[in-house]
Amino acid sequence: MDIEAIAQERRPRSLAQGLSSLRTCLVKCKDKAVDLGRSIKKLGQDDPRRVIHSLKVGLALTLVSLIYYVRPFYDSYGISGMWAVLTVTVVFEFTVGATLSKGLNRGFATFSAGALGVGAQHLACLFGEEGEPIVLGVLVFLLAGAATFTRFFPRIKARYDYGILIFILTFSMVTVSGYRVEKLLELAHQRLSTIIIGGATCIIVSIFLCPVWAGEDLHKLIILHLEKLAIFLEGFGSEYFQSVNEDKPVISTEEKTFLLGYKSILTSKNMEESLANFARWEPRHGRFQFHHPWKQYLKIGALVRQCAYRIEALNGYLNSDLQAPPTFNKRIQEPCLKITSESSKALTMLASAIKLMTDPSLASLHLHNSEIAVDNLKILLKTTSLEDTELLSIVPAATVASILIQVVKCVEEIYQAVNELSDLANFKSAVKPKVSPEKPQAQLLIHLGVVKPVVNIGGNKGDVVVTVLDDKIPENENNSRANYPDQPL
Amino acid sequence: MDIEAIAQERRPRSLAQGLSSLRTCLVKCKDKAVDLGRSIKKLGQDDPRRVIHSLKVGLALTLVSLIYYVRPFYDSYGISGMWAVLTVTVVFEFTVGATLSKGLNRGFATFSAGALGVGAQHLACLFGEEGEPIVLGVLVFLLAGAATFTRFFPRIKARYDYGILIFILTFSMVTVSGYRVEKLLELAHQRLSTIIIGGATCIIVSIFLCPVWAGEDLHKLIILHLEKLAIFLEGFGSEYFQSVNEDKPVISTEEKTFLLGYKSILTSKNMEESLANFARWEPRHGRFQFHHPWKQYLKIGALVRQCAYRIEALNGYLNSDLQAPPTFNKRIQEPCLKITSESSKALTMLASAIKLMTDPSLASLHLHNSEIAVDNLKILLKTTSLEDTELLSIVPAATVASILIQVVKCVEEIYQAVNELSDLANFKSAVKPKVSPEKPQAQLLIHLGVVKPVVNIGGNKGDVVVTVLDDKIPENENNSRANYPDQPL
Repeated sequence: MDIEAIAQERRPRSLAQGLSSLRTCLVKCKDKAVDLGRSIKKLGQDDPRRVIHSLKVGLALTLVSLIYYVRPFYDSYGISGMWAVLTVTVVFEFTVGATLSKGLNRGFATFSAGALGVGAQHLACLFGEEGEPIVLGVLVFLLAGAATFTRFFPRIKARYDYGILIFILTFSMVTVSGYRVEKLLELAHQRLSTIIIGGATCIIVSIFLCPVWAGEDLHKLIILHLEKLAIFLEGFGSEYFQSVNEDKPVISTEEKTFLLGYKSILTSKNMEESLANFARWEPRHGRFQFHHPWKQYLKIGALVRQCAYRIEALNGYLNSDLQAPPTFNKRIQEPCLKITSESSKALTMLASAIKLMTDPSLASLHLHNSEIAVDNLKILLKTTSLEDTELLSIVPAATVASILIQVVKCVEEIYQAVNELSDLANFKSAVKPKVSPEKPQAQLLIHLGVVKPVVNIGGNKGDVVVTVLDDKIPENENNSRANYPDQPL
Repeated sequence: MDIEAIAQERRPRSLAQGLSSLRTCLVKCKDKAVDLGRSIKKLGQDDPRRVIHSLKVGLALTLVSLIYYVRPFYDSYGISGMWAVLTVTVVFEFTVGATLSKGLNRGFATFSAGALGVGAQHLACLFGEEGEPIVLGVLVFLLAGAATFTRFFPRIKARYDYGILIFILTFSMVTVSGYRVEKLLELAHQRLSTIIIGGATCIIVSIFLCPVWAGEDLHKLIILHLEKLAIFLEGFGSEYFQSVNEDKPVISTEEKTFLLGYKSILTSKNMEESLANFARWEPRHGRFQFHHPWKQYLKIGALVRQCAYRIEALNGYLNSDLQAPPTFNKRIQEPCLKITSESSKALTMLASAIKLMTDPSLASLHLHNSEIAVDNLKILLKTTSLEDTELLSIVPAATVASILIQVVKCVEEIYQAVNELSDLANFKSAVKPKVSPEKPQAQLLIHLGVVKPVVNIGGNKGDVVVTVLDDKIPENENNSRANYPDQPL
């Protein structure tokens, strides 16, 4: 075969190869575009406020651009109008609190640094033409160094970091440009007023167009976390004992991911702190006053996280390969299930108390029930005979029981903190049961009753909570109705 | 007494009161000043790099101010010189990585947005004098909205958030000011070049004057976390069993705070992630290449946190009020102490392997020992007779044992991850023992020996690790020398 023939044979093949690789490339590109489209859609659907926020930024920027387009504005502000554009881009944040924080920080910092800069300028003038740049340089060095150092203080960093940055920026720019630009005061005035225009545009658009309040987000986040703990505890009880009894996991992967919602609590500290920081800047909105006790939310958040750490430890025992003897499991199953379901109900009620901003004392009934269940569990563990069982096989179950007891302690602490929040924020009161909160006796095990509370939704002072006494043990512990013993609480 | 007399009597008293309140006020002010001085001193002493960083910012700002002071510079850049000042203030960050990330983001964003802005300007020109502002307004709205939305993508937010901000800023400013300022290209060129001057100043000062590398900080942070886990485990073993045996805590409050160092690991996720993000921007420095596997550090960090969650659960049992029978405690004490001390040693060795960047396989000896101890513990728990003991009283001790078993699993995973890091980053190899890693037999309990390894510090390939076999059980398990069974590893 001669070379030409080989070449001819190869040409179509390489053409076909080229076409196929082009096709693969196109398919890949299409796939990537589809993926991108999907992730954009998901991002928007997960929180539609993101789309609204993007539109709001566009709107605010277009509004301040008017300064340039409209002749009278331009004539009075000139090129300084761009500071308004700059301010909007930098100050506009997702939440009202963050926008206010940045806007006010920027405003005050510009004003104070501007004034100080003019002062420094005058001081430097006294040192003659040659001394001036040296004095100004030294001043910039000292002030920038000192201000940068203050940014390392955690409390200042949390609240005024941006302000200090703008302070350094403005001071340097005023002192430095003052050395050349003669119309210093006019420049400072123009800059300040355009920044005020930009900042005001941001704040107005942020507050009056579908506002996103950091405070409300923090409020909802804490509620969500409480609910996630409740979901885990409710699911854990049934999942653990069913899988232990029937020797196989009874829960689908989907439900499992649902159960694992609590994982996000473990690393939520920074988010809570920044939301609380921004919330402090926000004016009265919805049901929140200006001095709403946001710090208390952080306290609750920290306790919720403590509880989540315990739950993380519990989660490690969900698919344990060691099986306790069925008789032992059956014995501890009842109090353990009671603990998980009652703690879960207590947490759900605490979440709904925060949500409705009503007194959380109704949750104490469930908390109390879980404490009784803890006592019962302890009695059971005390009286269980272990003659025929290997200790090793019951260690996982005993560990679960032991951690559950700790979880109840955590829930108690959360209850106390929510109570404090209720006092601090003047939550509407629900009527507390007029009975003494005596420590229940262990005999309760023998005689359980059911109290169905009619939760008072309106929650005005003086409303009466109607409770119905029902003297039989519920057949299904897992239903959603609340179970209480008919003992003094 | 007439009024004058009363007034005379009161005057000195109110003067005295005034003086005393002034004194109190002065004392308070002095106290506050002293407190402030102390906290400033502490802030500087905790990390002296903070002071150096502050001085560096001052220096960089003074350097770019030269643009204004020096006539030739000013003549070519004019008022645009202030962009250099602005860039330095905003871009200069604590670590080199953060400074580079911000500087490069700012540079590229300014360039691309400037070019796009000029294009938009030309496009708008086509629509005539009346159409131009409308087209520009629509373009600004669309681009600002779209760019703001992309900032919600977590991956983009982590790396390019600042770049997108500057992109929006520059695009708006170029299009908007282009509508008025005729010398658009000159303006864009001046802005870009002054930004480059500012950015370059930052980067040079940041890199060549006592640099703070984010990568090195991440490296040290992970080492510190491993050491903190090791300290807790070492302390926990002795503390738990001594307090249980002697019925009182034997540890001082000071030591206790030392033990609780691990708490900072629980919430360190954000810090690790931001350090890793910045580290990616950093050039080769010290022992770290440009493509050092920083992601693997995040993986190790996550596993260390998992271990810290378990340890947080353990910590809850340090001062348990339930006392197990001394005989039971004595039985599980030995394997439990072995687990804690060997895991602790394994973690310490892993930390030092990362520190020295040598192969971590030496830690496998300790890990192996702790696995043997786990097996022994399981055998003990299997064979323990519980005829005379209450289950309730041994639950805490059993829980501790159970969690310790989980901790060993965590340490194993950490070991794997550090091994992967060692492969990825080409750590210097230490000689691995030439024996098969067979699962040890439980009989090991009966015949324990000691291997004293001579750790090879130089760690060059081919070096031989000398091990000394010593065939007796060590008298004191708590001493710092490493104990190994004389079985194949």
